[in-house]
Amino acid sequence: MTRPSNDSVLRALLRQPTRHTPIWLMRQAGRYLPEYCETRRRAGSFLQLCKSPALACEVALQPLARFDLDAAILFSDILTVPDAMGLGLYFSDGEGPRFERPLREEWAIRDLAAPDPWDHLRYVIDAVAEIRRALNNSVPLIGFAGSPYTLACYMVEGAASSDYRHIKRMLYDRPDLLHRILSVTADAVGAYLNAQIEAGAQAVMIFDSWGGSLSAAAYQEFSLPYMARIVAGLLRHRDGERVPSIVFTKGGGLWLESMAAIGCDALAVDWTIDLGEARRRVGHRVALQGNLDPAILFASPERIAAEATRVLDSYGSDNTGHVFNLGHGISQFTPPESVAALVEAVHAHGCATPRDDHQVPAPG
Amino acid sequence: MTRPSNDSVLRALLRQPTRHTPIWLMRQAGRYLPEYCETRRRAGSFLQLCKSPALACEVALQPLARFDLDAAILFSDILTVPDAMGLGLYFSDGEGPRFERPLREEWAIRDLAAPDPWDHLRYVIDAVAEIRRALNNSVPLIGFAGSPYTLACYMVEGAASSDYRHIKRMLYDRPDLLHRILSVTADAVGAYLNAQIEAGAQAVMIFDSWGGSLSAAAYQEFSLPYMARIVAGLLRHRDGERVPSIVFTKGGGLWLESMAAIGCDALAVDWTIDLGEARRRVGHRVALQGNLDPAILFASPERIAAEATRVLDSYGSDNTGHVFNLGHGISQFTPPESVAALVEAVHAHGCATPRDDHQVPAPG
Repeated sequence: MTRPSNDSVLRALLRQPTRHTPIWLMRQAGRYLPEYCETRRRAGSFLQLCKSPALACEVALQPLARFDLDAAILFSDILTVPDAMGLGLYFSDGEGPRFERPLREEWAIRDLAAPDPWDHLRYVIDAVAEIRRALNNSVPLIGFAGSPYTLACYMVEGAASSDYRHIKRMLYDRPDLLHRILSVTADAVGAYLNAQIEAGAQAVMIFDSWGGSLSAAAYQEFSLPYMARIVAGLLRHRDGERVPSIVFTKGGGLWLESMAAIGCDALAVDWTIDLGEARRRVGHRVALQGNLDPAILFASPERIAAEATRVLDSYGSDNTGHVFNLGHGISQFTPPESVAALVEAVHAHGCATPRDDHQVPAPG
Repeated sequence: MTRPSNDSVLRALLRQPTRHTPIWLMRQAGRYLPEYCETRRRAGSFLQLCKSPALACEVALQPLARFDLDAAILFSDILTVPDAMGLGLYFSDGEGPRFERPLREEWAIRDLAAPDPWDHLRYVIDAVAEIRRALNNSVPLIGFAGSPYTLACYMVEGAASSDYRHIKRMLYDRPDLLHRILSVTADAVGAYLNAQIEAGAQAVMIFDSWGGSLSAAAYQEFSLPYMARIVAGLLRHRDGERVPSIVFTKGGGLWLESMAAIGCDALAVDWTIDLGEARRRVGHRVALQGNLDPAILFASPERIAAEATRVLDSYGSDNTGHVFNLGHGISQFTPPESVAALVEAVHAHGCATPRDDHQVPAPG
């Protein structure tokens, strides 16, 4: 038996009924938790933390020890893939991730190859296996990767950027080169996610953090088709269980219909769209994950509960196909008590029959 | 006679036919022009440049000397209004604008008052009059201001922010305080825009640069109604001519229908929405301004022309009600030659009867 005892996230992602609306939080293992900061200090650096399966497992479980969350997520970084492709990832203090060798020369782009994850990303696969063992079938483990376009942003710019002008110049002037990067990266991400599934990930999510910086036409040419290709190549089952896939383009609210058509099981949406409107637009094609403004976690517990209720209500009285989450990763400045208040509110209010709340014992 | 000899921008904003699709560019007077950098150097600082009507006039005219643009825009900064409200605007090198006294204490918010622009923002009014005189009725002059929510972001955070957590905390925990700030700021902006109109601005634009960081519900409560209040109080005519108003929420593509209903004449849209789709959604209620990805200006002249044509074509074969622009301000790294190529392409291709392009002499 590999089905977790709490399978509500998997059920919701597959649009099967759940007793309550399940919740997990993007970046739930992170700097807002003092125990995370302590483990990271012991690791020496963020990258060493990612590269130690034992420590990655430790931090992945930390939020579950504190909060009644319905899923764990692999602790890693989206940039491990380009690092394995030879770009030389490093983190400079206060400046975020950087690559030693940004990808701008035609010869380097022609030489780019998809790494075998079992060779070059073994530490991630080992972390997946270790977290999965430690979870002991309590809640499912979600694997993840960055989208090809989002990874290409970092690979071409060499760092986070406010205007993406190098990749945009390539996109408009040398689309052939960008398509080459995206194609190789899509192969790399597809193999990487399948390795995570083989190691025990029970659902996978593709993070397209920067796809929303594209024009409508460019998104349809440079981001969405590469996510579609990855989704089409994913292992659909593992140990007889369906492995659902989630696609998230931050700022992609205008493009939901086309995103819902690429074959994924669920779309994650940010807070700029009303969840009920998103549901009407995607119909029954996909489940929806989201979409609380993470900034609400700076407010009082009462207000957090009220806003969580508003999100649940906007999804509708039938909660089938809704996984509660934030619309973006949790801020490092979030008080942990706010997360406790949120999880409690979602479990108390997010029942299949909201009008009978008082008759349903709230979990946790 | 105050009608400019080239009134195509004014006509398009009022959805009247124009011979060619007019074009101007957000931040067209700026750092990408060497002559701007030279004037700024002479001024001593950005703020001194804004505060000198003669120098502000000089830089406002610079792009018109180089390019065949169809409008001038006031050279100023959106933060002059909170500065006039006593917050103490300054610019620290490489860090952008800051306020000496961010607005976070309840007593300071209660004390906030809308300044009389004729007293406290006289240098802007004088700049409007001076630019208008210098234009000599060649093209119209567009005035502008920041939206109340966008100004409040800076006023509460004290600087640009990546997560807006102070204003978001206020929004969720003390909406009464934020409404007080927004209400006073809306009064200030309304009086300021009317002073610009009285001094000679022939159209006005409200920049809501940060409204797109709000949830759908919060946008409807904290940004849009205050822009609606300003629009309702604008002087509609000056010297017998209609003064059109433009509203721009960056990242507001999901909310176009509600934006189109606040009484403004035109909406500016960023590049994430297909312009034809935007037009279908707003119908005949407003004109549209936009929406080229500013990053296209890093590409070759041929590609710039092709992408400009794509935007013109997406608007439709009847160009009535279209003012060509970027979807955001021009980048400081833009080669001036790219702007020349863009303006030429828009004027050559953006004709009322695109199938007869070869019979219509292209201006410039």
